[in-house]
Amino acid sequence: MAPVTEYGDEMYALVERLYPLCRSITGDGVRATLEIVGEYIPLKVREVPTGTQVLDWTVPKEWNIRDAHIADATGHRVVDFRASSLHVLGYSVPVSATMPLAELRPHLHTLPDHPSWVPYRTSYYQPEWGFCLAQETLDALPDGEYEVCVDSTLTDGHLTYAEHVVPGQVADEVIVSCHVCHPSLANDNLAGIAVATYLARALAERTPYYTYRFIFAPGTIGAITWLARNAERIDRVKHGLVLACAGDRGRLTYKQSRRGDAEIDRVMRYVLAASERPHRVAEFTPYGYDERQFCSPGFDLGVGSLTRTPYAGYPEYHTSADNLDFVSPEAMADTLAVCREAFAVLDRDRRYLNLSPYGEPQLGRRGLYDSLGGRSDAKQAQMAMLWVLNLSDGEHSLLDVAERSGLPFDTVADAAGALHGAGLIKA
Amino acid sequence: MAPVTEYGDEMYALVERLYPLCRSITGDGVRATLEIVGEYIPLKVREVPTGTQVLDWTVPKEWNIRDAHIADATGHRVVDFRASSLHVLGYSVPVSATMPLAELRPHLHTLPDHPSWVPYRTSYYQPEWGFCLAQETLDALPDGEYEVCVDSTLTDGHLTYAEHVVPGQVADEVIVSCHVCHPSLANDNLAGIAVATYLARALAERTPYYTYRFIFAPGTIGAITWLARNAERIDRVKHGLVLACAGDRGRLTYKQSRRGDAEIDRVMRYVLAASERPHRVAEFTPYGYDERQFCSPGFDLGVGSLTRTPYAGYPEYHTSADNLDFVSPEAMADTLAVCREAFAVLDRDRRYLNLSPYGEPQLGRRGLYDSLGGRSDAKQAQMAMLWVLNLSDGEHSLLDVAERSGLPFDTVADAAGALHGAGLIKA
Amino acid sequence: MAPVTEYGDEMYALVERLYPLCRSITGDGVRATLEIVGEYIPLKVREVPTGTQVLDWTVPKEWNIRDAHIADATGHRVVDFRASSLHVLGYSVPVSATMPLAELRPHLHTLPDHPSWVPYRTSYYQPEWGFCLAQETLDALPDGEYEVCVDSTLTDGHLTYAEHVVPGQVADEVIVSCHVCHPSLANDNLAGIAVATYLARALAERTPYYTYRFIFAPGTIGAITWLARNAERIDRVKHGLVLACAGDRGRLTYKQSRRGDAEIDRVMRYVLAASERPHRVAEFTPYGYDERQFCSPGFDLGVGSLTRTPYAGYPEYHTSADNLDFVSPEAMADTLAVCREAFAVLDRDRRYLNLSPYGEPQLGRRGLYDSLGGRSDAKQAQMAMLWVLNLSDGEHSLLDVAERSGLPFDTVADAAGALHGAGLIKA
Repeated sequence: MAPVTEYGDEMYALVERLYPLCRSITGDGVRATLEIVGEYIPLKVREVPTGTQVLDWTVPKEWNIRDAHIADATGHRVVDFRASSLHVLGYSVPVSATMPLAELRPHLHTLPDHPSWVPYRTSYYQPEWGFCLAQETLDALPDGEYEVCVDSTLTDGHLTYAEHVVPGQVADEVIVSCHVCHPSLANDNLAGIAVATYLARALAERTPYYTYRFIFAPGTIGAITWLARNAERIDRVKHGLVLACAGDRGRLTYKQSRRGDAEIDRVMRYVLAASERPHRVAEFTPYGYDERQFCSPGFDLGVGSLTRTPYAGYPEYHTSADNLDFVSPEAMADTLAVCREAFAVLDRDRRYLNLSPYGEPQLGRRGLYDSLGGRSDAKQAQMAMLWVLNLSDGEHSLLDVAERSGLPFDTVADAAGALHGAGLIKA
Repeated sequence: MAPVTEYGDEMYALVERLYPLCRSITGDGVRATLEIVGEYIPLKVREVPTGTQVLDWTVPKEWNIRDAHIADATGHRVVDFRASSLHVLGYSVPVSATMPLAELRPHLHTLPDHPSWVPYRTSYYQPEWGFCLAQETLDALPDGEYEVCVDSTLTDGHLTYAEHVVPGQVADEVIVSCHVCHPSLANDNLAGIAVATYLARALAERTPYYTYRFIFAPGTIGAITWLARNAERIDRVKHGLVLACAGDRGRLTYKQSRRGDAEIDRVMRYVLAASERPHRVAEFTPYGYDERQFCSPGFDLGVGSLTRTPYAGYPEYHTSADNLDFVSPEAMADTLAVCREAFAVLDRDRRYLNLSPYGEPQLGRRGLYDSLGGRSDAKQAQMAMLWVLNLSDGEHSLLDVAERSGLPFDTVADAAGALHGAGLIKA
Repeated sequence: MAPVTEYGDEMYALVERLYPLCRSITGDGVRATLEIVGEYIPLKVREVPTGTQVLDWTVPKEWNIRDAHIADATGHRVVDFRASSLHVLGYSVPVSATMPLAELRPHLHTLPDHPSWVPYRTSYYQPEWGFCLAQETLDALPDGEYEVCVDSTLTDGHLTYAEHVVPGQVADEVIVSCHVCHPSLANDNLAGIAVATYLARALAERTPYYTYRFIFAPGTIGAITWLARNAERIDRVKHGLVLACAGDRGRLTYKQSRRGDAEIDRVMRYVLAASERPHRVAEFTPYGYDERQFCSPGFDLGVGSLTRTPYAGYPEYHTSADNLDFVSPEAMADTLAVCREAFAVLDRDRRYLNLSPYGEPQLGRRGLYDSLGGRSDAKQAQMAMLWVLNLSDGEHSLLDVAERSGLPFDTVADAAGALHGAGLIKA
């Protein structure tokens, strides 16, 4: 395993490449994003036509944008899409007009409390046009006529998402999902995309037990589209993780699945606690990222969400201040490391059945036990074997054993391996 | 809704009217009490003949009393029933005799620790006669002959109780029960009777969901009689509350049903906690008021008990000091207000089923959601809709949603109303 | 019941008698031990031949030893089995040789951290020979030739264990088990043997409800042998207790069964808490004494373990410092008293069914209730009757009633007796 700092720099470089693109829930910005990610891991890109019924929703028209600006009477662009993809209201309908500032104002979005920041705003399902700008820019605009231009198209087209699969020993799946619809916002969610990409690469280093499916899709409508198109595969999804806000310098937050006691919940709690990292475990709420869809009551999947500072928990959230300075290679490397630790546990966690459940089997003659009795310093490995044997009744997993015994998960899993090798337990 | 202080004064006035009457588990005192209550809310008065078998019990003979006194040699009444109904042992058999003080003593009940108070004592099922008096009265009696007179009758007659029904939208019932058998004791239980009476009036202001049945009956034998005569109705009783000691100045106490997790228990805990009133939630015990009968293991109804200072928890309990000064309009008004708040929650609490459980339904096109995305200040009403949708799996009630989300119950119930109106959930 | 101090002295005297014997998992030391115990309580001694298959194990060869020593060049015994049975490695194969100290060293076991103590070591299942001695003895040995002699036999023979039964009113059994395989170690486990012996005598003072079976057997292989030979009886074993380390001056420790909520667990927790003795309740672990076998997942019996300072919890554990000074009559008497208190509860604990579950039965006419109503000082006995009636739904035991009501178990059990006598409940 390469040092995590190297991955940190590589992930940061990927974030830098993706940052300028103008993503939305449809359009060429998403395609360009997936093309870049596809340089790192092979992707299957899916195109779903406008108008397709997906669960309760309909795939909307595709939105593309070439330019947008507000120019003053001298022709000077006082707000310019070319400077930042945030300047245009997402899904703005086209407009080309000249109007006085007073008439323009209702179309302008600012953050009065952070006068130098540009907000991120969208209007996917109501036809609107608008601009986002700094309050101080707005304050400096003299009255007068302004030329406004949004050179966008909103036409029948496609919704685009992509999948990457790391094949495992079994068809049961772990899904990792991240949203790819936000424009130039680094933490939300280019850091999540970068961590997912490198997590996929790390998992492929050896064949994992589970099959890991990575989903790069626009938020909400993308997850809904994926769910609608994979109805037959849902039963295979045993565990999942939504990755978002993966790069800021705050402590890690794991938000539990709706179930609250899904195996992914227990694994994440265990790994975060065992790692002694500062962290927080949050209850499920039906707000946030695409765990909302995976944990809707009809699906109720065991899908949690890992972030650093979570949704709306930092002032820079959904503003131009969520920029390349806001994320760090170290933070992304740390998020990646936790994911790898958690999946290492998840991938080895099993329920075994003790095949010799009446009394203890004689470990000594199988070479599994110190032959010299009477010593009080029973070794951890031997204790782990006794624990695995005692709790392998089909009800307890290795994680249960680790938690109840206080022994490290790896010691317990190694003990299970030894017992399995000796034919004393079966999976 | 009228200000609670007005109800307080009215309830206090009702207590004052009822105070002088000599109630017992049978007899004209109960009838007179129900006649007065009947001026406030229509009552169906039931008369159950002596000797009727009711569960494990038998309706006893009816007791009535005209006069009782102890007179000294000069004819002066040193203990006089006309001064207070407490002076005679409840259910005293008739006596007319002259005897020395020494012979009289075994029939006299006092409270040595509170020498100026008169205790309340009864002997329903053993034929006894006796008097209750202040210790200091007894101490002042010189030796000598005394005339004792209890002019009572204990004959075949009836046990009397009454019901008042507030019809609801469904036949499922909430019962509210209060005992009407205590003589001149204000808190126990004239205050309970008064609160029940005004609660019935308040509930009738609009048609509630449940049918509310108010039971005014003598303690123990009255509840047992009601249960025996309503065997076919018991299944309809979904929730219930026993009201007692409703007017003293102590904090509220809710005693949970035997089940401990009945919906009335959860509602009362929620409302008391949310109201930030000082209060106590007590575990069920098989002692107290008629929750003993409703929560006997054969019925095991979801019936709790609301008091202020509970049973035997104050020195004035079952003494002449539980008088009109011991209860206050404000305390009764507060008890009434909590009952109304609790029943407002209980009456709206439902389990809904999300009819669109796969992914989130698109609230925007139904006008249930702000169309402008990207804002971080999701409104409470929208959060409540997401919570109701997410938890409406048939397992969770709106109270569950309120508790898990931390949102006010009313906000949650309103959200459920909007979703129901949009056809997204069904009850 | 005799004062516990008398039993303390008698138990201590028994420990003194047993102390010098060289016990192991087989052999004449066990037989001699059982012969002495048999003077106190009748024992059925079982002999199981070498080679018998018992669960996953095989009864080993029988080990006997006549002498063992290390002698220096002058013939002086520097290590002598006759001084302490600990000096020889348990199950040492015979050896008779002369060798330099350097060659002898790998066969010598010491405790460098406690240079004056002799460790206890065994090698049951690997043919070894060896000696245990004080580090300071070893340090004082000059280089040179030493004569080593272990005059032992390891031959086909038997494994020996014994049972004592106190017949009860029902065939359901409580087992009490203690290991008899340790040589001259007072706390581990001569104190356990002594407490078990006197517990058996105490239980026989009147016919108990359960049948109590006492098992005196070598650790591990003995329990496994007993389990293998009693497959048909296992279903009768309802509760059990493993007694060990019963005589040191530390506080009591109850280690729960694997189930954790077995009735013996609840009874021991209750009795220890109610007695206000300093104590600790420990979770089950699959290490320790023969609870390991009884609580293996195939059996999963409700068997806990009572010790004072538990397994390996004191420095003297498995050393010569676990001698007659390490145990006290008072500590053994205290352990015995707790066992008797616990079994007194266990033996009376039942689930009853209220035969009059609709409303309260009228206790007054059955002479079970004070006839004078209105008093606030309801007596404990009456409260206990109400509690038993309310909770006797087939789900709750008398211990449940005691715990929920806060009333003493004996009061509750007495109330149940009165109600049973009145025909109001049935077992």
